[in-house]
Amino acid sequence: MIYMGSPIIIDKLLYQPKNSLIKQSIHAKEIEEPLNGDGFGMGWYVPVVNNEPAVFISVNPAWSNRNLRNLAPKISTECFLAHVRSATVGDVSESNCHPFRYKNLLMMHNGGVENFGLIKRKLREPLSDELYNWIKGQTDSEHIFAYLLNELFTHHKAISEEAVIDAFERTFRALKKLMADNGIKEEAYFNIVVTNGLFFIGTRYVTDPEKDALTLYHSEGSRYVVEDGITKLFAPEDGDNAVLVVSEKLTDDKDWTLIPKNHFVIVNKGLNVKVRPIKA
Amino acid sequence: MIYMGSPIIIDKLLYQPKNSLIKQSIHAKEIEEPLNGDGFGMGWYVPVVNNEPAVFISVNPAWSNRNLRNLAPKISTECFLAHVRSATVGDVSESNCHPFRYKNLLMMHNGGVENFGLIKRKLREPLSDELYNWIKGQTDSEHIFAYLLNELFTHHKAISEEAVIDAFERTFRALKKLMADNGIKEEAYFNIVVTNGLFFIGTRYVTDPEKDALTLYHSEGSRYVVEDGITKLFAPEDGDNAVLVVSEKLTDDKDWTLIPKNHFVIVNKGLNVKVRPIKA
Amino acid sequence: MIYMGSPIIIDKLLYQPKNSLIKQSIHAKEIEEPLNGDGFGMGWYVPVVNNEPAVFISVNPAWSNRNLRNLAPKISTECFLAHVRSATVGDVSESNCHPFRYKNLLMMHNGGVENFGLIKRKLREPLSDELYNWIKGQTDSEHIFAYLLNELFTHHKAISEEAVIDAFERTFRALKKLMADNGIKEEAYFNIVVTNGLFFIGTRYVTDPEKDALTLYHSEGSRYVVEDGITKLFAPEDGDNAVLVVSEKLTDDKDWTLIPKNHFVIVNKGLNVKVRPIKA
Amino acid sequence: MIYMGSPIIIDKLLYQPKNSLIKQSIHAKEIEEPLNGDGFGMGWYVPVVNNEPAVFISVNPAWSNRNLRNLAPKISTECFLAHVRSATVGDVSESNCHPFRYKNLLMMHNGGVENFGLIKRKLREPLSDELYNWIKGQTDSEHIFAYLLNELFTHHKAISEEAVIDAFERTFRALKKLMADNGIKEEAYFNIVVTNGLFFIGTRYVTDPEKDALTLYHSEGSRYVVEDGITKLFAPEDGDNAVLVVSEKLTDDKDWTLIPKNHFVIVNKGLNVKVRPIKA
Repeated sequence: MIYMGSPIIIDKLLYQPKNSLIKQSIHAKEIEEPLNGDGFGMGWYVPVVNNEPAVFISVNPAWSNRNLRNLAPKISTECFLAHVRSATVGDVSESNCHPFRYKNLLMMHNGGVENFGLIKRKLREPLSDELYNWIKGQTDSEHIFAYLLNELFTHHKAISEEAVIDAFERTFRALKKLMADNGIKEEAYFNIVVTNGLFFIGTRYVTDPEKDALTLYHSEGSRYVVEDGITKLFAPEDGDNAVLVVSEKLTDDKDWTLIPKNHFVIVNKGLNVKVRPIKA
Repeated sequence: MIYMGSPIIIDKLLYQPKNSLIKQSIHAKEIEEPLNGDGFGMGWYVPVVNNEPAVFISVNPAWSNRNLRNLAPKISTECFLAHVRSATVGDVSESNCHPFRYKNLLMMHNGGVENFGLIKRKLREPLSDELYNWIKGQTDSEHIFAYLLNELFTHHKAISEEAVIDAFERTFRALKKLMADNGIKEEAYFNIVVTNGLFFIGTRYVTDPEKDALTLYHSEGSRYVVEDGITKLFAPEDGDNAVLVVSEKLTDDKDWTLIPKNHFVIVNKGLNVKVRPIKA
Repeated sequence: MIYMGSPIIIDKLLYQPKNSLIKQSIHAKEIEEPLNGDGFGMGWYVPVVNNEPAVFISVNPAWSNRNLRNLAPKISTECFLAHVRSATVGDVSESNCHPFRYKNLLMMHNGGVENFGLIKRKLREPLSDELYNWIKGQTDSEHIFAYLLNELFTHHKAISEEAVIDAFERTFRALKKLMADNGIKEEAYFNIVVTNGLFFIGTRYVTDPEKDALTLYHSEGSRYVVEDGITKLFAPEDGDNAVLVVSEKLTDDKDWTLIPKNHFVIVNKGLNVKVRPIKA
Repeated sequence: MIYMGSPIIIDKLLYQPKNSLIKQSIHAKEIEEPLNGDGFGMGWYVPVVNNEPAVFISVNPAWSNRNLRNLAPKISTECFLAHVRSATVGDVSESNCHPFRYKNLLMMHNGGVENFGLIKRKLREPLSDELYNWIKGQTDSEHIFAYLLNELFTHHKAISEEAVIDAFERTFRALKKLMADNGIKEEAYFNIVVTNGLFFIGTRYVTDPEKDALTLYHSEGSRYVVEDGITKLFAPEDGDNAVLVVSEKLTDDKDWTLIPKNHFVIVNKGLNVKVRPIKA
């Protein structure tokens, strides 16, 4: 889940919605494995302090984390993202928890590459020494982020929306090639979001165009408020807007839009939501 | 789950059965709340060392506990018990994890008392100073164990099967009276086991005789072996026997027997299994 | 350590001072046992959200806590307190970590009562049911806080500075009597702070007037800023003031004042610092 | 610390000695940084079960680990090793805790390479895919073990004392060359032990022969018993022998022998202790 919009107390996003991320950590509804009990992480930006995001991570399940329960009602932010993990590649350890942070950038990933070990080594090879040594854990996700950062810094001078989009497309092409060259036939799923706190780029991608991608929704131009104890989405008022992109709908409201398969969703502080195809 | 019998590697009990306790920690089949992700504990006896049991406890979910995975294949014991917790009363903390140990005795509990706070204080009042201060956590379970120990030491000079049975009946009577006196109308569930490593007493008890008790099974006089990667129960051979008492069947075999409601199950090193009514 | 003053990024208090609390968690200078590695806790007020404080607690050592390192540079507050623990009474568990919170009040304690088990039970007896059941852990500190709250709510209608002071004096008198009645001859140390975010009351107290109390300092009417990577205390400027009360000096500056033995230190949002004798 | 000898309850090694490893985790005496509070790990062999060692690891300090306290008095073994960590390279995470295990082999390391990031990538390059992907953490230690295993499996068909010695020498030569080629001028310290439960090879090595190596002692041919609550070393009796190799003396006894700098210590089940120069 990623939120961008008017300042919000993160408790409203994490605990109050009917199908909140915390509830998803116990009973996810739209995926096969309903339990995401192998860790939790969140990141948020506090621009009055500086442009580096705060990150809070837990290898314990989100639903019983006392610090998280205590912090959520006290943190207000304009850009927030959170992730619950069901371990596939990599141990249950802090190094493997999303979001991953590199300086002022955050990344998180839902999906994965089967038999990632077959391409891990080759994916690391082109990395700069700095990014090579920056990797701390074992996940495909963190390695993909490192590769994407390497493409970003190699081919672009500044971090713009277009630069991140280009780095994504280069990364997906490279991953597909590496998978093909190393005998990975299963499709891979890349629902990924990268943000610098000022804009975010999300992807809903599957390497095999015949297969369905994992779900990814956005809710555009609406207010996100709590009424009668339930978080609801409302039509926007002046100066009080928000965009949410989520893997699972947080509420039963109808204004969730499925992002088309193999498309980007691009959102900035102006809360303009753009959707466009991924060329990879 | 409690096992008594020929020495067994605990991995065979924890991980290998089709519906093992570890799998139950993710997907329990016979109870309403299918997730027991709020901690794990196990105890076992190593009589060649001494008569105090070893205890291993984790506030993390059992399914991702690396130490547990590593220890299970190395520990061999004749008396083993294990518990997965779905927190009802009390935080997710080590002090609230079962089994509870007092000297050479272990206790664990499946069930609970609604609104336990209404009787907690009165339950503590008769305790000896030593037992009063021995309590470390917040659970109804630990308090019930302390009360039972107090009855045991007050009315009996030695820890025998009959003494423990008497202490159980006194405890259940006291609990029912306290509940009635303090306006707790909901039935309470006491599937409890107490052991000293030489015998164990289990209860399948509900305070309201109109209601069903939580399930509790035993499998008597059979061998417990692994074949084709699956743990199965076999007819006993000479000198290779075991008794298991469990909240949920570990296998699909037919030789699990439901213990009658409001009955004790009594098992000793000779592996005689007795079932008799609880007078409370 | 407790801070009240102009909004401050807590990183400046926790990590940057020469003898910061985090460094104290490894090498405390002014006490016998130099290691405080048995847990960490902090609380702070975010009045723009509500008057209940946030609490963050860790049973791991403060010095290696990744979440703490990440959160500290992002939290700005006008009232902050933090505590490192060297376990004396009570296990290393979350329930035993300071600060303790009751609604909008926080309390933390440096010191303790020898053989606390001898009076624990009697200290609980007068508590209201609510406070009795509110206690979660095993420490003398949490029990003393419950007793103080009980005195506060029994004898006062509102939480004022005078009410808290009176509750402190009643509590210390009760503790001294209980200790005397139950054969505890060793002196007890009560360096305690209680706050509601609007004012705080600290005590530097030892039950035996012949003995020295644990150290407690305040630094009054100065600014607290970072210069050349080192946090320093400066003479106040208009509208930029702060008061710090600490068990150990955070810096080598000379403007730390030792609070007299068996005295209160009383500080409110106006940053007036009053010191007065404890009548107990 | 590594122990090989008659079966011993590991509590006798971990907790009872005057300067036990657990005490060293708080106050190490012979090194600069006296605190080893960044994790603990131990491994032991249970040959009656199989030849793979058990491993128990904790990111919490050893001194307050309740499971460790409970397990230590119940585990009896003929080959035991334990390690306390003061984090230098790598986060405080389970993946970075010693001992590292590869199948039936265990390795632990005291020491390190300054600026390890400068050679990490090159050290990984020659690894087989399997060993490349086997690495889970960030430490120099785990990478060195992977390199040593790669040398072992490349140049030897079986795991013998001579094969391990050869792999050590190849590894140290490679490390020295990589360091020289990449501008690492600081000496590196490699006090390492590798064992398969049947023999162990320890090294006391520093890359710069002008510098002192970290301490490493052995105590040969003596019994290791507890008397008057203190663990002491005694002259051997028939069939009751043991060898200990440690970074710090566990007792004040005089029969600790410093292993010469840049030498191997080689010990097998027969408890013959050989010391010979490292050719690297």
